Parts: sequence; structure tokens; C-alpha cells
Amino acid sequence: MTIKSVDVVVVGGSAAGVTAAITARRHYPSKSVLLVRKEAQVSIPCGIPYICGTVGTPEKNLIPNAVLEKEQVEILVSEATTIDRERKSVVTAAGEVTYDRLIVATGSHPVTPPIPGVEKEGIFTILKDVEHLRKMQDHLKTAHDIVVVGGGFIGIEFADEIRKMGGKTITIVEIAAHCLSLSYDGEFCVEAEQVIRSSGITILTTSKVTGFTGHGHVTGVQLSNGTILKADAVILGTGSKANAELAKAAGLRIGATGGIDVDRAMRTSDRHIFACGDCAEKVSFFGGGHSTLKLASIATSEARIAGANLFGITRENPGTVGVWSTALGDFALGTAGLTETMAKAWGYDTVTATVEGPNRHPGGMPGGAQTKVKLVFECNSGVLLGGQVQGNSAAGEMINAVSACVQRRMTAEDIAMFQMGTHPALTASPIAYPLVNAAELAIKAIRSRKGS
Amino acid sequence: MTIKSVDVVVVGGSAAGVTAAITARRHYPSKSVLLVRKEAQVSIPCGIPYICGTVGTPEKNLIPNAVLEKEQVEILVSEATTIDRERKSVVTAAGEVTYDRLIVATGSHPVTPPIPGVEKEGIFTILKDVEHLRKMQDHLKTAHDIVVVGGGFIGIEFADEIRKMGGKTITIVEIAAHCLSLSYDGEFCVEAEQVIRSSGITILTTSKVTGFTGHGHVTGVQLSNGTILKADAVILGTGSKANAELAKAAGLRIGATGGIDVDRAMRTSDRHIFACGDCAEKVSFFGGGHSTLKLASIATSEARIAGANLFGITRENPGTVGVWSTALGDFALGTAGLTETMAKAWGYDTVTATVEGPNRHPGGMPGGAQTKVKLVFECNSGVLLGGQVQGNSAAGEMINAVSACVQRRMTAEDIAMFQMGTHPALTASPIAYPLVNAAELAIKAIRSRKGS
Repeated sequence: MTIKSVDVVVVGGSAAGVTAAITARRHYPSKSVLLVRKEAQVSIPCGIPYICGTVGTPEKNLIPNAVLEKEQVEILVSEATTIDRERKSVVTAAGEVTYDRLIVATGSHPVTPPIPGVEKEGIFTILKDVEHLRKMQDHLKTAHDIVVVGGGFIGIEFADEIRKMGGKTITIVEIAAHCLSLSYDGEFCVEAEQVIRSSGITILTTSKVTGFTGHGHVTGVQLSNGTILKADAVILGTGSKANAELAKAAGLRIGATGGIDVDRAMRTSDRHIFACGDCAEKVSFFGGGHSTLKLASIATSEARIAGANLFGITRENPGTVGVWSTALGDFALGTAGLTETMAKAWGYDTVTATVEGPNRHPGGMPGGAQTKVKLVFECNSGVLLGGQVQGNSAAGEMINAVSACVQRRMTAEDIAMFQMGTHPALTASPIAYPLVNAAELAIKAIRSRKGS
Repeated sequence: MTIKSVDVVVVGGSAAGVTAAITARRHYPSKSVLLVRKEAQVSIPCGIPYICGTVGTPEKNLIPNAVLEKEQVEILVSEATTIDRERKSVVTAAGEVTYDRLIVATGSHPVTPPIPGVEKEGIFTILKDVEHLRKMQDHLKTAHDIVVVGGGFIGIEFADEIRKMGGKTITIVEIAAHCLSLSYDGEFCVEAEQVIRSSGITILTTSKVTGFTGHGHVTGVQLSNGTILKADAVILGTGSKANAELAKAAGLRIGATGGIDVDRAMRTSDRHIFACGDCAEKVSFFGGGHSTLKLASIATSEARIAGANLFGITRENPGTVGVWSTALGDFALGTAGLTETMAKAWGYDTVTATVEGPNRHPGGMPGGAQTKVKLVFECNSGVLLGGQVQGNSAAGEMINAVSACVQRRMTAEDIAMFQMGTHPALTASPIAYPLVNAAELAIKAIRSRKGS
């Protein structure tokens, strides 16, 4: 039963799907676009941790349909079960929809680690499903001893938000030496950990979970050193994997890391089908190797490429830079590109420089915060590989200035000559502007390394 | 009497001089650097308006000597009276100092408009001199009816700060149709004016001051329409002109707009003498014509070029982009490059796009503000010419991301594919990130203009 014939079908209603649909309409105003999603309501993915404390309920954290309606994207709420590539159709529970071009944006699944007892009640992965989130939130309200497994950004954001519910004992268990260590160098991780600990949350690093105790319902989390942490709720923030099942079943090629294989134009192995977001295979901006980063901001960038390329290739994916930020109360962190640790691991000869100072001038101006910026350069070329920023909420936009410098492969020399705006009530002084000063210090370090 | 022989002398102790001296030491660690300045204490130029209300006294708004001492720059507090180019020396009240390279960073003077009565007591130009500022501040404390002549950023910042002293009647008189109209398009100026007016300050636009009344002390400000505004204090925020006297007396070439003539390496007509900051002639980043912009951030960018080039040219000035921001309480504005008005006046065929939305996602996240971004593109090339941002304090760094895009001559296509970091507590959503969305809207407008 063909219920509909449209020019463009998008499967998936989260950041990638919505952005791809909007972009398709903007670039091809004469084409009809239908977005198929299984959820009646779609959570804002990055906002999910905030349903616990700050925002209050999953229903206050939704992607509004209005953003689609404004661009005249039609919405079909139904699960896509099959892609029939010969018929160029998507089969849904509500019937079949034929397409001229298809965009697959089916997102990712949380990884459930294969730990004995992980199926017990009271243990939650982070799904984007509103029902699931409401159930989880209800459970957290009555729970007292909460363990968060995984100290990545989802883990620390959840821990901090659960803390705001009040009266809980919260422990983060992280397998690596530091929380956030995939995105920040140690010195930034340590400061973030201090902020988290000072709020009363316990952090156990270099700690592996080996089991969950309890009959039916979880009562404890067992660590490899034998410790058992009391727990009546557990949040698993242990990563996610591409949801490529629909594409795989349709015979689309799957990449080495499990995502849908795409070229730089975001085309799959079928020329009429594009993929973007968490479900798509990614390459790094740095050298073009595999990247397993999954972020809504990456998803939307890819979606803008896929949507624009549907009926004529104009955009090429330069690869994933990896830019994101997080906040713990007034303390904010941002990262763009490679950390020093990551750059070294990838074989780069790095030079770094770190600058710290108030983001006001004079320092007595109100509302400011100590701001730390670290830039990581390739030593021979002087090209910026990445940057990390720590400060107050302005760090969220400052990291985007860093990202622009990374994306344009600016050198330390370029950044030293950067023309920035400064203001006493908003930024550091122009004499001490951290990006520029870090670039100057890196130039000095590069010269001294080269012996000139 | 030669009191000293050093490798590098810098004349001037404000943003350009300090930065040039530091840069010289960083790039030439074996060279001795002496900074000559006439002031015992140097005001942070951009912080001057804030001595009235937020910061409290001129003494809390000083460039600390520590930034120079840290880089082992010697300081000589004495007025430089002559440059003797043959002897390669600077004559000061304290004696003569010989140099191998000289950097002139003598700044600017406020323009005193030739209005009858402008010499009366109670009428103040904005000097960087701490004594003058203290006297002005003391006068403002007892004054009741205050008129600010000039609605540029210095004028509006002073007006807003004087308001914080409490119990004053404040009027801004602006000759143009809008305050801030040299830096913002009308729609941004109007919103800034609303914020100012809602705080109780009166703004009179398209209004020309023709005289000041009073015997000895000012009592009123006369406008061209005959109105006399009651006034016991007047602040003149009517622009500034290069202080090139010392250089001119030494026979250095002076440029068409009155600044010291410099090449792209910041060299004056004497190969051993460099100039930077407000005293130096400027060219625009857009087409290389004259620019009369004077900002501390421009001064420091130029100083980093001059300081690095002293003993070997490695840096070239790409010309002045013009990036700055201002704040009125929680309301902040930033601008980079050309406004639409300015771009059109300069002969560009422009396409613009404006995007407005909350800088949080979901919108219910606390601490956010409605944020408006306008981007101005050249229609045929799609190259970004400038941007304006309005929002809360994060606008101060967001405009620096815009500036990076301008400086790298990014096109609307480039910006549409920008990889930004986003976070619920810090920025707009990745679906609606304003720079990217404005670029997409501009692409659509460019296409529809070209009829494709």
C-alpha cells in the first residue's frame, strides 16, 4: 500500500534528520520532503541530562515540530521497517512511501556493556525515548544511592543534574585515569573533577565495574578491586554505537566502525540514498582516519551536506573536527579538534601553549572568571590541531572561535595576528587575549625547539 | 646626556606600546627593550567609562606594570620630547636614550569639537590621564544634569555608567540618525537605544550641538533646533585623532588621515622606526582604503606585527577588520567587519541574512538570552564581509568566531558547513546555530537573486 509519493524522504527525527529535511527544503524549494520518525515527541539529545534537575521533565526538552513546519517539511510518525531500494520506497507501519532521494538519519543506540547483572531493574541506559526518560526520572526521584558508570560528558552532566534533585549519594565510576579524558588533556580533566567533587559527588577513576548485585532490582555495583558500591539506581553512560540496522538490511555498505559507509558527499553505496549523523561512518578532519565521535553538532553539519547534495553535489565533508562544550554550574569547558594526548597518539609532533587569566579587564569588572586556554600546534607547520577552553559560559562561544581557526588550518602566526574584539565587561584585555597570547608563546616554543 | 643605550625603544605605554614591547621581547629574547611613557600610571583605555560606576575609581583601572616586568621590559617614566633620527635616539625629560629600533605608539587625542563655549568648566573630553579622570569623576559625583555629546560606544558606555552613580538626569546627543550607527545597522542601533532609554537615559538623535551656555561653568547645551538642555556636566565623546606630533617633528611621513604613514610591515618612512596603534595610519581589510577606526584591539594586533618585524620582516598587516563589542548591563552587542550600510556605501553588492533565537536549548534552560545574528555577504563571491551579534555576554566571544570567518574570507558555503560546538547551557541548538543558519539563508537569497 503506497500511501505517499514524495521527492525526498528522511528517516529519523533527531538533530540529523531535522536538519537534513530543513536543508533539503532550503536548497530545493520545489521538492517535497517527508520526515518519517517513530517518536511522537523527540527529545533534544543534548538536553537529556537536564530533564533531571534544571529543565524538570522530558516534555520540556523536545525538538519543536515548528522548525519543520516552518520549512514545510511533512511529518509522518511511524516506524520505518524496510528500505526497498528497487522500488525506491520506505516501508513503514503506516504504509509505503516512495522517494526520489532518501536520507537515512537513524542515529545511535547506547552501548550496554556486557557486565553480569546489567539487565537488573534500576539500571538505565540513556535512550532518547520520552517514555523511557520519564520512567528513569521517576525512579531517580525515589532512589538514594546512585552510581553513574562512565565519566564522559553524559555521565558527568547526569551526575551533576541528579545532584540538583537533592538528598542523593552519587558516585561516578570511570575506567580511565580521568573523567572526560577522551576530550581534554589531564590538567583540564583534573579541574573538572575538582568542581564535581566539591559539589559532593564521589568520583572513582581507574575503576572497572565487574558486576551488579541484587535480586531483580539492583542493590550494588561491584568493582574489580572487590568494592561494592551501594546503589538503588545506575545510569550507564558508556558510549553509543551507530544504529545502521535499517540500512544494513537494505544491503547498504557498512563501514569499518559499524556506521553506514558514506563518501565525502554523504552518499551511501546507493547513489539515491544519503546518510548523516550518528548512524553514518565518520572520518577525522585530521588525516582522514576513522572517527567514532558522535555529537549532535557533527550530525547537523553532516546533515547540511547531505541535504544540499541531494540533487547535485556541491558540498564535501572535510571530516570531523570534534567541537563540543559542557557546563557544571558556572564552570564551562570547551574543546575543538585534537588534545595534546590525542595528537601525540596519532603521531603528530606537537607544541602547546597555555594561557590563563581573567576574562574581564580590569580584573575587577564583575561577572568574569579565570579563563584557561590551551592550544595544540603541529610543530613543523605551526598549524593549529586543537584547543581547549575553560572558564565561564562564554567558553561555549570562545571554543567556536578556536574551531574556526582549526577548520581554516590557521597557523600560530595567523592566530598571533588574529583581530579579536574585546570589551571590559565581556572578554580578556586585548593585550592578554588568550588565543593570541597562546599563539605567541607557541611560536616562541617552536623557535626554541628548532634552535633558532 | 645619553642616559641609556638599548636595542629597542618603545614610546607610549598604552595598549599598543605595552604589546609591542612584550612582542619584541618574545621574538627577540636577546634584545633589550625600554618602554618610555609620560604617565606614572596608565589607564586601561577601554575600561575608562567603567571608572564612574562599576569599577569605582581610575586607580582600579590600570594596566599593571607586571605585564611588562614579566617579559623584562624596562620602564622609563618620562615624556619623549624629540626623536633624533640621525643619532637614533629619543630625547626625554630625563635624558637621551639611543636605540637600534624604535616603535612609536603615541596613541590619540580626543577631538574637541569647535563649538562655541566648549572651553567652559564642567565640559570634559575623555583623556586617558588618571588625574584628569579623577577630576572628571569628582565633578560628575556632584553634577545633576549631564549631557553626553556623541552616541558612539564611548558615549553610551559613559552614559550608562554615570546612570549607575544614581540620581542623575542624563541626555545623549547624537548628530546621526542613530547611536552606534558607524558600527551597526539601524535595526541593531534601535534595540540598543531601547535598552538605553528604558534605563531612564534620554537620547536625542539627528541633533547637533551648536553651543554651550554658562559663565565660566557650563549651565546648558544648545542644539541647532534652539532647544537648550540644562547641564552642569558635559562629556564629549566625539572621536579622536592620531597623536603623530612627535613623529611629524622628526620628519616621518604622515598619512592622508593624519596618522604616521606605515607600510604593511608597520614600518614608517624611516626603516629603523615602526609605528602602531592609534597614532598610525590604517588601511581597511576590505579593499585596502583608508580606515580611521581606533580600537585597543586593532592597536594590539598592529603592535604584534611591529614587535615581531623589528629585526626581520615576518608579518604583514592584512588591514583593519574592525571588531568590537559593548555591553549595557546584560545586553551585549558585537560587530566585525562591514555593516550592510557600510558595505553598500563602499560599493559592495550585498546579501544579508538575520537569524534570531534563544542561546540555550531547550529554551527553558536558564541564563539564556534572545540572540540576533546578522551576516553580510558579497553577493557574487559569497564572501563574508561582516557580522553583527546581539545577545548576552556570550556575544563578546561569538563575534570573535564571526571575526575568524571574516579574516579567512569564508564564504556562505563555508560557514554553512561550519563545525561548531553547542551545549544546552551555553549556546543555541546545533539545528538552529545562528551563524550557520544565517549562512544557509544567505545562500538561498543569493540563489534567488541570481534566478537559479
